[in-house]
Amino acid sequence: MLKHPGHASLEARKRSHLRMTGRERNAPNMSSGEDSLIARYFRPLATDPGAFGLVDDAAILQGRGDEIVVTTDAIVEGVHFLPDDSPDTIARKALRVNLSDLAAKGAVPAGFVLTLALRTQDDGWLAPFARALGEDAGLFGCPLLGGDTVSTPGPVMISVTAFGRVPPGKMVRRSGAKPGDRIVVTGTIGDAALGLDILKGGAVATALAQDAAASRMLAGRYRVPQPRNALAQAVRDHAHAAMDVSDGLAGDLAKLCAASQVSAVIDIKSIPLSAAAAELLARGAVGIETIVSGGDDYEILCAIPEAGFAAFARAAELAGVAVSSIGTVIAGTSVPRFLDAQGREIALTRLSYSHF
Amino acid sequence: MLKHPGHASLEARKRSHLRMTGRERNAPNMSSGEDSLIARYFRPLATDPGAFGLVDDAAILQGRGDEIVVTTDAIVEGVHFLPDDSPDTIARKALRVNLSDLAAKGAVPAGFVLTLALRTQDDGWLAPFARALGEDAGLFGCPLLGGDTVSTPGPVMISVTAFGRVPPGKMVRRSGAKPGDRIVVTGTIGDAALGLDILKGGAVATALAQDAAASRMLAGRYRVPQPRNALAQAVRDHAHAAMDVSDGLAGDLAKLCAASQVSAVIDIKSIPLSAAAAELLARGAVGIETIVSGGDDYEILCAIPEAGFAAFARAAELAGVAVSSIGTVIAGTSVPRFLDAQGREIALTRLSYSHF
Repeated sequence: MLKHPGHASLEARKRSHLRMTGRERNAPNMSSGEDSLIARYFRPLATDPGAFGLVDDAAILQGRGDEIVVTTDAIVEGVHFLPDDSPDTIARKALRVNLSDLAAKGAVPAGFVLTLALRTQDDGWLAPFARALGEDAGLFGCPLLGGDTVSTPGPVMISVTAFGRVPPGKMVRRSGAKPGDRIVVTGTIGDAALGLDILKGGAVATALAQDAAASRMLAGRYRVPQPRNALAQAVRDHAHAAMDVSDGLAGDLAKLCAASQVSAVIDIKSIPLSAAAAELLARGAVGIETIVSGGDDYEILCAIPEAGFAAFARAAELAGVAVSSIGTVIAGTSVPRFLDAQGREIALTRLSYSHF
Repeated sequence: MLKHPGHASLEARKRSHLRMTGRERNAPNMSSGEDSLIARYFRPLATDPGAFGLVDDAAILQGRGDEIVVTTDAIVEGVHFLPDDSPDTIARKALRVNLSDLAAKGAVPAGFVLTLALRTQDDGWLAPFARALGEDAGLFGCPLLGGDTVSTPGPVMISVTAFGRVPPGKMVRRSGAKPGDRIVVTGTIGDAALGLDILKGGAVATALAQDAAASRMLAGRYRVPQPRNALAQAVRDHAHAAMDVSDGLAGDLAKLCAASQVSAVIDIKSIPLSAAAAELLARGAVGIETIVSGGDDYEILCAIPEAGFAAFARAAELAGVAVSSIGTVIAGTSVPRFLDAQGREIALTRLSYSHF
C-alpha cells in the first residue's frame, strides 16, 4: 500500500517504497520531506472510510450485498502517454481507462488502488498528478483506497486496479450478444488515434496545420478519455454484451463477437465521427481504417436487443451520453464485416491500431 | 485485464497490452503466438469462477458476507529482486509480499490481479514465471483474477493487488496495541537482509564464504518470503494490532507503535534469529542494526494481550508457525527502545534498512 520512504530517497533508489502512514514521531531518520509530501498529496484522495486514511497496510472494500467488479490497466510513458504530457492528463488517463472498463461492465465505481513507478520524486510532478487524480476520483465517485510507490530507472508507469459494484450476477459480459441485436457505440470513434498522430507530428498534424482547435480537440481525446460511467446503469439494464473500445473498434468488435459466438455487419456511414474526423475522412487525409482500427477510444461498445433499444436510447439521453446504432449482430463466426455507403465490404488489413 | 497483443509484439512495443481473451477466429492479424502463449500460461491460474477464464474485461469478487481486504505491492528489478534472479523466485516474491500483508491483517486470501511490465515477451521467462505463480496461487488458495501486461524499456516490474476476506470489522489494524501487550514476531528476523548482502557480494558473503548452505538459506530468505498465512486466523482472534515486517523490524515496530499511540521495549536477545544469523552476530561479522533494520523479512509483527498469549501460542503451534515474544508495549509515544542482554539501550541510527 502507499508507503512512506523511511529515510532514503527515491532518486537514490535507497528506499524502494513510499508507504503512506502517519508521520512517525521522534523517530531517527523516519520522517522525511517525501513522507509528508506523499501524505499531503494522496491522503486527501482517500475519502472512503475503508481506506483508513492510508495509515494501514490494507484497505477494506465493502460488498454491501453487491458483487465487486475488478479491473486493472496500466499506462506506460512512451506507450500510453507521451513523455511531455502533463502529470494532470497522465493521472486522469490512468484512472479513466479503468473507469471505462467499469462503465462497460455496468458497474458503479467503488474505489481504486494505484502503483506509481517514478524515476524521481518530483514535487512539481506529484502535486498536479495527485490533484488531478483527486479531482477525477471525486468526479467519478471512485476514491483512492491505497497503493504503492516504487522507484524505477525506466519509464514512468501507473498501474491502477479499480473496483465497481454490480447487483449479483449483473456484470455485463463480452459474451451474450445475440443475432438481431443492434451494435451500439457511445461518443465518437477514431479521435484518439488521430490525436496521437497529431502529437507525433504525423500526417494528421500536417492535414490540420491550419486548424488549431480541431488539433487540440483530437489530441485531448488521446490524452484524456471520457469514460461513459453515466451509462453504466443503462448498459446493465439493456445490453446483452458490452466492452469498452480501447484497442480499436474493429478489433474489439471482433473480440465481442468471438466471445458471444456471433458475427456482425457494420454500416460504416453510421459510425459516429467528430466533425474533425469526418472532415479528415472526407478530404482523404485519413482512411476509414485509421478510424476503426485506432486505439484509445474508451467508448462503450454493446449489443442491445431491438426490443430494448428505444428504452436504452432514452436512458442514454437522460444520462447525457450520445449513442449510435452502427450495425447488427448476425449468426455465424466470421469476422464482423464493415460495409460502405454502397454496401461494399471494406477489407481491413488490421483490426487494431499499432501505436508505435 | 490480461490482454492479448492484437497483432504486434511486445519487443517492438507495437501493442502495449496483452489482453487475455479467447483466441479470435478468422481474424486477420488477430491471432498470434503471444496470444496463445499468454493464454496457455496464465489461464490455468484463473481457477476462480469470478475470473471468467480471463476471457472478459473484468473479474468478479464475491463478498460472501465478508469484507474484502485489499493490498497492493509492486516489486522492481534491481530493487526488490536482482536481474539474474530466476523467474520462478520473482513470481513467488511478487505474490508473497502481498500474501504477507493479508496474513498480518488476519485475512484469508481470495485472489489477485497482476500487472506485468516486461522488456521482451520471452517464453523462456514467462513459462517458469507463470508456473511458479500458479503453484503459489494454489498453495495459498489465491487464484489469479486478471491482469495487464505492458511493454517497458525499463526494468521488469510486477505489481500485484491481492484480496482477502475477513468477517465484518475484523481486519487487524496497525492501531490497537495497548500497554502491557506482548510484542510478538513470527519466524526469524534479519535473514533476508543478510541474504541480499550475500547476493550483492558484500561483507556477509565474505564472512560465509566457507558455508555454502548458510549462504544459500539466507539468499533464499531474500528471494522467496514465507508469508505466514497459516497464522491469519490466530492473528485475527488474538492480536490487538498487527502488520508485516517488510522494511525492517525496528522501523515497522515504530510505525505500529505510532499508529497505536504507544511505545515499546524490546529485549534484543529475544529476537528470533536463524542459526546463521546468530553465528554472524556472535562472530561480530554483522551488527544487531543490520538484523533489526533489514528489510524483506515478511514476518508478522503483532501485539498480543497477555491474557491471550497462551492461546495464541497454541494456535501458532497448531498452524506450524514459530512465534516469539520479544518485548512489551508501554505507554508513551517515544520510539521503541531496544535493550541488550545487560539492559542497555542500543542506539539505532536507522530503523529501516537501505537496499541500495
